[in-house]
Amino acid sequence: MIRPAKVGDLPEILQLIKDLAIYEKAEHEVLATVEELERTLFGEVPKVFAHVVDVDGKVVGIAIWFLNYSTWLGKHGIYLEDLYVQPEFRGQGFGLALLKELARICVERGYPRFQWWVLDWNSPAIEFYSSHGAVAMDEWTVHRITGEALKKLGS
Amino acid sequence: MIRPAKVGDLPEILQLIKDLAIYEKAEHEVLATVEELERTLFGEVPKVFAHVVDVDGKVVGIAIWFLNYSTWLGKHGIYLEDLYVQPEFRGQGFGLALLKELARICVERGYPRFQWWVLDWNSPAIEFYSSHGAVAMDEWTVHRITGEALKKLGS
Repeated sequence: MIRPAKVGDLPEILQLIKDLAIYEKAEHEVLATVEELERTLFGEVPKVFAHVVDVDGKVVGIAIWFLNYSTWLGKHGIYLEDLYVQPEFRGQGFGLALLKELARICVERGYPRFQWWVLDWNSPAIEFYSSHGAVAMDEWTVHRITGEALKKLGS
Repeated sequence: MIRPAKVGDLPEILQLIKDLAIYEKAEHEVLATVEELERTLFGEVPKVFAHVVDVDGKVVGIAIWFLNYSTWLGKHGIYLEDLYVQPEFRGQGFGLALLKELARICVERGYPRFQWWVLDWNSPAIEFYSSHGAVAMDEWTVHRITGEALKKLGS
């Protein structure tokens, strides 16, 4: 039921990306399109990957990920950008199955780190991740430059 | 003085990676080797990139980065893994010049986000980044699975 995504899954994947954004109170921030996802996930040298939960041919969950890198370890790792399972399919272990599949890929390839961000108010997710050994990197904060500040810095 | 790294820079780059780890109180965590860096940064399809500060043929600063991805925006961005300038070469704008070069690449390629992590106690860095428009993503925390917990999850 967990398998790598196919091109034909993209409309359903985009809908799940939007559903997750609604949950994260940021629906208006989803600007991705099926065409853009296709170029990125299924182009010549993809740098972004997706696994899906397939229930009777319907995509009900997604994990979208890419490779990060640790200069200290000198190794790639997996960064999980989005993990989402449709509400009506929760409680059946699909989220965990997606996590396990990505952890399996890490172990198989010798990637020492598997990581992702969590919204601080998302207690159910934090409890779920902690119960499987995830550690919150509390000492670090992500900084981001976008928009006009990015243009100014890059000019 | 800011240029993409060359294979011959790798011994100096590794030393700077170690110097940064000492500053971050994690020297023992640096397991990378020149050989591993060469495979990763100069392999057939590199997924990690480096820019250096070259002062009279000596590498005195580094920016090591890779591509991340936003599912919401449907776009890649730059994730800055390491930024470091040797203490005796600080105050001359080299750190800013490295940031500006990566911001320039973002703008040129249409990457809407440029981001990195900062240790919460590193006030000088935080002030420096803020002064150039970086925003701390305080609502998010990175979670990480490594070691035995990763093996267990992936088995």
